[in-house]
This record gives sequence, C-alpha cells and structure tokens, in this order.
Amino acid sequence: MRTAEYPSAIRDLIVQLRQMPGIGPRSAERIALWIVQARGNQPENIASSITSTRQSVRACPRCGFFTMDELCEICSDSSRGTGLLCVVEQPTDVLPLEKTGAFRGRYHSLGGRISPLDHVGPEDLRINELLARVEAEKFSEIILALAADVEGEATTNYLVELLKPFPVVLTRIAHGLPAGGGLESADELTLYQALSGRTKL
Amino acid sequence: MRTAEYPSAIRDLIVQLRQMPGIGPRSAERIALWIVQARGNQPENIASSITSTRQSVRACPRCGFFTMDELCEICSDSSRGTGLLCVVEQPTDVLPLEKTGAFRGRYHSLGGRISPLDHVGPEDLRINELLARVEAEKFSEIILALAADVEGEATTNYLVELLKPFPVVLTRIAHGLPAGGGLESADELTLYQALSGRTKL
Repeated sequence: MRTAEYPSAIRDLIVQLRQMPGIGPRSAERIALWIVQARGNQPENIASSITSTRQSVRACPRCGFFTMDELCEICSDSSRGTGLLCVVEQPTDVLPLEKTGAFRGRYHSLGGRISPLDHVGPEDLRINELLARVEAEKFSEIILALAADVEGEATTNYLVELLKPFPVVLTRIAHGLPAGGGLESADELTLYQALSGRTKL
Repeated sequence: MRTAEYPSAIRDLIVQLRQMPGIGPRSAERIALWIVQARGNQPENIASSITSTRQSVRACPRCGFFTMDELCEICSDSSRGTGLLCVVEQPTDVLPLEKTGAFRGRYHSLGGRISPLDHVGPEDLRINELLARVEAEKFSEIILALAADVEGEATTNYLVELLKPFPVVLTRIAHGLPAGGGLESADELTLYQALSGRTKL
C-alpha cells in the first residue's frame, strides 16, 4: 500500500506551471487544482490564449517591439516624431518609458546587452539593424537608455564608439538618485553618479 | 498620437492569466511577457498540459477524489483497509491527510459543506452517495474530517444525525491547539475546544 498522490496529469501540469516566472511549487499546485476543478471554461480559454498569442505576436522587424502586424504600433504611427531614437535593451523596456510621457520618438530594442559571461556578444544583438536605421532614418538625436549596471555601461560604451562617425547627437539617460530615495539609502556608485551628473540650477 | 501599449493578444492574455488564483496584474504581465518571449516551446507545452488535464482528469465516481481511470488510486487499492471511512469537504483535502501517514482507510469527498449564505444545501453535496456507500461497504468507523468553522460544524452535525441509524462508530477529528502554537496566540474558541476535548494521560 502506498500513499496516494495526484493523478499523473495533475503532477505533470504542476511541473509545467512551475516553469512560469514567479510560480513556485505551492502556487503551481494551487493553480493546477483550480484548473482541474474550474466549472466554466476559463482554463481552456487560458490555454487557447497562450497558443494564439504565441502564433500572432512577433517582434517588429524594424524596432523589435511586440506586434501582430507588419510593423509595430510605434513604427507605424506617422504622428510620432522621427528625429529622436531611444535605444533600449529589451522590448519590455519600451512601455515603462512610454508611460512617463516624456518621450514621443522612435525606439530600437537591442534584444539584450553585451555580456561575455552569458556568451552574448555584439553579433547577438540587433546592432546591424540599428546602424542601418541610423543610416536610413537620419535621426537628430539617439538616446541610449540601457541599464545602469556593468553590462549596460559596456554596451553603451560600445554603441557610442560605433555611432560616433554618424552626424547625430548621442545622449544617455541620467543616472542618479531614484525618486523618493534618500541619500542614506543610496549606494556609493549611485551617489558618485548623482554627483558627477549634477545639473545647473 | 497616443501612448503605445501591448498588442491586443498580449493584453487579452494578461486578462486571461489574472483569472488564475494568486495571480495579480503584475504577475500576469510578467508571465504573459515570458510566454511571448520564450525561445523553446514551454508555453505551448503548458497550454497543451492544461487542455489535456482538463480532458483526462475527473472526479472518482465513488469517492470524489481526482482520477484518470474508472476509479481513483485510493478506491482501487485493494491493500487498503476497508473498515475506516474518512469524510472530507473537498478532494483537495485528501492528500494533506494522506501525508500524515496516520490514516490508511478510504475517503469520501462531499464536494463542499452546507452553507446557506452560498446557497449550498445538503442536496448539492455528495451525501446520497455517502449513504449508499455506508449501506454497501459496511464501515466499522466513519471519521468526519470537516473544517473547524461554522459551516464545517453545521455539516458535521447534519451528517451525525443522518448516520446515527447505521451500525457504525462516528468520530470526528480533534479540535485544539495547532502544532507549535502557544496558548497566548490561540483564540478563545480554540482554547475552549482544546479544554473540552482534553484527553487522559
């Protein structure tokens, strides 16, 4: 006689669900039991939504943001300025910047950043596509909005070298104290960058 | 010109994912973006695991636990004792009891408890199935393992009245101090029940 357990389908489902980010063993079990016991067809709808999203959403061939059409919503918006380009690491970085309302130009997602430890070199990023756009779209300013960490800095420096020959103003987003952050909770590097990046009043 | 947002398929997916228990808006967005960006076919596997689990897992017609076969693992295990029956509210209550190792009899899930506020009456529970089993399977003892709250108590009392005519010992699981719980953190009702349920040393 052995201790009873869930049928294999439920155990497999728990293993599958645990692959989702932020889902631990307890959450996966809870969700799996909800899936098994749900009275309506919500679980079926979730499954078909996963499948259809995988099929219908792809990277915009121009900028790398998500799209279901030829070009993404941003690239095909003719009312947007064409003079400014904001370079980000991931397509998921675009909406946080959009929400600020401080930028209404174009974007370019690299698809990552240079990171030798993760075997990601410049050739793995959408850098050739960036150079082709800089050539073709004649931006007046390129804002580098990469992460404020070692790999982000290295990628920024690499891009600056690469873009220097072009007749375009290169800027990068400011590094300094985060909103609501006191000096006592800021680390040394943040304070160093806040000091050296001080602006005139 | 409007602020960019995710394509409709991703927004729909986020709405769908939020229906899962314990998944808030931030988690749903994080999982949706993982689904869109995953390189392998993990999302497709999750979707097909949801669908196949919904099709293959059903309630055991005898006890109400989960099964993929005619009868569940517990009901079809001939090495288990047939004298003891443990009545629980939900099929999900079975495995926590199994894990204690303290019980190796049979189970019966009611599928809920009597709760007039939620419009759940005795006729909505698997009580007729319970009576038929008590008649047919000749248990020596029936352990009522329902929740220690108002509805659980009411359902226990209802079942006691109903089962009294049968030649079977009726017991219920003990109510008292939880393991590791000090007296100072126990509420009045728990202490009252711990006192009145005291056992001889």
